[in-house]
Amino acid sequence: MDVRKVVLREDEMPREWYNILADIKMNPPLGPDGNPVSPDMLAPVFPMNLIEQEVSSERWIKIPEEVLGIYKIWRPSPLVRAVNLEKALGTPARIYYKNEGVSPPGSHKPNTAVPQAYYNKVFGIKRITTETGAGQWGSALSFACSQFGLECRVYMVRVSFEQKPYRKTMMQTWGGVCVPSPSTETKAGREALEKDPNTPGSLGIAISEAVEAAVSDTSGQTRYSLGSVLNHVMLHQTVIGLEAKKQFALINEYPDIIIGCAGGGSNFAGTAFPFTLDKVNGKAIEIYPVEPAACPTLTKAPFVYDHGDTAGYTPLLPMHSLGHAFVPAPIHAGGLRYHGMAPTVSQLVNEGILTAKSVNQLECYEAGVLFARTEGHIPAPETAHAIAQAIREAKQAKEEGKAKVIFFNWSGHGCLDLGAYERYFSGALQNLEMSGEEMRAAMEIFKNYPKPANLKSR
Amino acid sequence: MDVRKVVLREDEMPREWYNILADIKMNPPLGPDGNPVSPDMLAPVFPMNLIEQEVSSERWIKIPEEVLGIYKIWRPSPLVRAVNLEKALGTPARIYYKNEGVSPPGSHKPNTAVPQAYYNKVFGIKRITTETGAGQWGSALSFACSQFGLECRVYMVRVSFEQKPYRKTMMQTWGGVCVPSPSTETKAGREALEKDPNTPGSLGIAISEAVEAAVSDTSGQTRYSLGSVLNHVMLHQTVIGLEAKKQFALINEYPDIIIGCAGGGSNFAGTAFPFTLDKVNGKAIEIYPVEPAACPTLTKAPFVYDHGDTAGYTPLLPMHSLGHAFVPAPIHAGGLRYHGMAPTVSQLVNEGILTAKSVNQLECYEAGVLFARTEGHIPAPETAHAIAQAIREAKQAKEEGKAKVIFFNWSGHGCLDLGAYERYFSGALQNLEMSGEEMRAAMEIFKNYPKPANLKSR
Repeated sequence: MDVRKVVLREDEMPREWYNILADIKMNPPLGPDGNPVSPDMLAPVFPMNLIEQEVSSERWIKIPEEVLGIYKIWRPSPLVRAVNLEKALGTPARIYYKNEGVSPPGSHKPNTAVPQAYYNKVFGIKRITTETGAGQWGSALSFACSQFGLECRVYMVRVSFEQKPYRKTMMQTWGGVCVPSPSTETKAGREALEKDPNTPGSLGIAISEAVEAAVSDTSGQTRYSLGSVLNHVMLHQTVIGLEAKKQFALINEYPDIIIGCAGGGSNFAGTAFPFTLDKVNGKAIEIYPVEPAACPTLTKAPFVYDHGDTAGYTPLLPMHSLGHAFVPAPIHAGGLRYHGMAPTVSQLVNEGILTAKSVNQLECYEAGVLFARTEGHIPAPETAHAIAQAIREAKQAKEEGKAKVIFFNWSGHGCLDLGAYERYFSGALQNLEMSGEEMRAAMEIFKNYPKPANLKSR
Repeated sequence: MDVRKVVLREDEMPREWYNILADIKMNPPLGPDGNPVSPDMLAPVFPMNLIEQEVSSERWIKIPEEVLGIYKIWRPSPLVRAVNLEKALGTPARIYYKNEGVSPPGSHKPNTAVPQAYYNKVFGIKRITTETGAGQWGSALSFACSQFGLECRVYMVRVSFEQKPYRKTMMQTWGGVCVPSPSTETKAGREALEKDPNTPGSLGIAISEAVEAAVSDTSGQTRYSLGSVLNHVMLHQTVIGLEAKKQFALINEYPDIIIGCAGGGSNFAGTAFPFTLDKVNGKAIEIYPVEPAACPTLTKAPFVYDHGDTAGYTPLLPMHSLGHAFVPAPIHAGGLRYHGMAPTVSQLVNEGILTAKSVNQLECYEAGVLFARTEGHIPAPETAHAIAQAIREAKQAKEEGKAKVIFFNWSGHGCLDLGAYERYFSGALQNLEMSGEEMRAAMEIFKNYPKPANLKSR
């Protein structure tokens, strides 16, 4: 009987996260005055213990026992060999995926939601605000807050709020409160509604609302939490790749190709960063972040300094960006509708260490359905981007007759995305791509912005 | 670091199912002439290899390698210690649950869907019909059929079809076709609609439709599949309890109380039967099937001979039954809305080896929300019945100051039941209970039916 799932025991879980800042060179985030921001400038937004993690250059950071205790609700997650998918494709490639859909909210997001809630709790915070795209992050933070008795208020991108009415109920089940964004609760939301009362919303606008709601609480007991992009978020997610490395070692395998879908970059980074160091040190592997063709941040947009949110509340971050005013097309993978990309991922793409890919909507659903009919589990539309790329690579391996090892992160299940599958089956979905003209118009915003330096980490 | 999840390796999975027919005495099913049905009379409905399992009295039946291969997509499932729930209740009890929500459709149902699809395939069948209540079974059979390239047609109880629109899409994702029942496709469906055009439907009617659709296919390539009640279904589900016994042995525990929710009886039986033999042999444990107060088959209805379906297509089965014409109130736990109960479970309740319990709707949702806020995972409303009983027992243990070991089956997740949670939070749900008058009226149907004998297994 061949092993299909490689499972670690709880006592084999990683005890430290991997911090890639120890191994790469980064442009600093800039404040309104054009100078690097200091940690204390972020203090109204985040608790200081998380800010310290954000700027730390320690390579290994201890996972607190309290966080490990909650991780054990669903971690370690299985590494699965997709034998039926391999058979269906007739490929000589061996395809593996890490199943992050086994967590309570059904995605990788609680890997960082739990430590973020923990550090806020330890710092004396009572209430956390955040935004959510597809709803995965808002659900994960609501879950994490319920574990620590914290209040949670979530601004959810309106198009996703309407496409996925049950996400709100899921958050409510964990005690969270979910508000469609743009809302009239904040200045940023009111301005967005004034500009376009029918706006589908965007992650950029929702971030502005959540930041504003946090910093405007004069009691000082509210902080904001971000589910992607920032360094400490990537750090927490490395538990995925660190577990995977142990699992591959158990079966004497090592991936030739590593794939993750990328919206803000966190599930990709968490999966890939522990392997990235090996590549920097000379290992011949390919690492692919995969984004939607409708929001081609890494594949088409430049490496620039830009705000993380639409209203410009955040520092300027060095990243690939479509511009903070850009509102992506309402594709059914809300978690990937973000104008920017994690600075760490952006830096590594800019250096050529990572190679970005993009996939259009219909290819993703086709891949998602093939995966469900072979491997059983129904993927989230975001996850289907990674699957689509893995299938491309498996077909390529077949053409080349090479038994490559393909590894991708199965970032979450699609049980709350069945409305999108319904639309796919009924033929209502179409491919959506940014035109050259749209891209040129979006780039106007950067005319007077500072430019990040071209740093080389190796 | 305390172990929270007890996980088996794939090579530790049980290789045989446990057949309780080897250890208990049963009244035979009766045909239209009042005589026991012979296996060949069932041949138009089921493939002969499954009929042989249905009537087998072998104690251990080998699990085919092909079935084990597919089980490995999600099995072995974890046994989890509910430490946070224990803390919230302040109980000295140790509470464990088996998480069957990790399967692709999110419940225990594929434990039997996969072998049923396998045996049909081996027998040369091309197309399977079935019914579904909450949608869990129809999803599971669609998933199983996709693994073997079989067609699948599912008649779904109308009230659930309307409460859970995405169940249809889930089945479609695996290639299954889902039809609301009663439909106009069958004589049984048309008759039910004639009697009451606004009927919420029932499992009894949907079973009639699916059986009729199978036996009326003159090509001989269609068979019917039942997701509960029958002996071979209970047999396949024993993989749950057999794994759990191994997991308890690993941590030197043995449950004092075993709990499962019960609609047709399959997740309960699968969990409890491997422990039931120990009880028959003198072990001092309590075993509780838990049903909704709105459908009190075991707790209030008599042990009788009754049809498994509304139209009377099935043989007369010896079981606790509310009468095959009974249409249960439309509670949000569609998987427990069945007029009858597995004959094996009914026999053991009748003998006093199992002790049936019932829980009303609001207590279940309260238990479900408490579970989600402590243990993370959001349970299906059916599963919440088992949780509610486990909480009652944990509170009892606290009163008595006893460190009892409570074990229940977490039969499935509630990601597709969030509409029901939404109604609970909004105050739209209420308790529903059968009145004595309704019970007396329902019992009229049995006036001229044969009575099962009072057999004793020990």
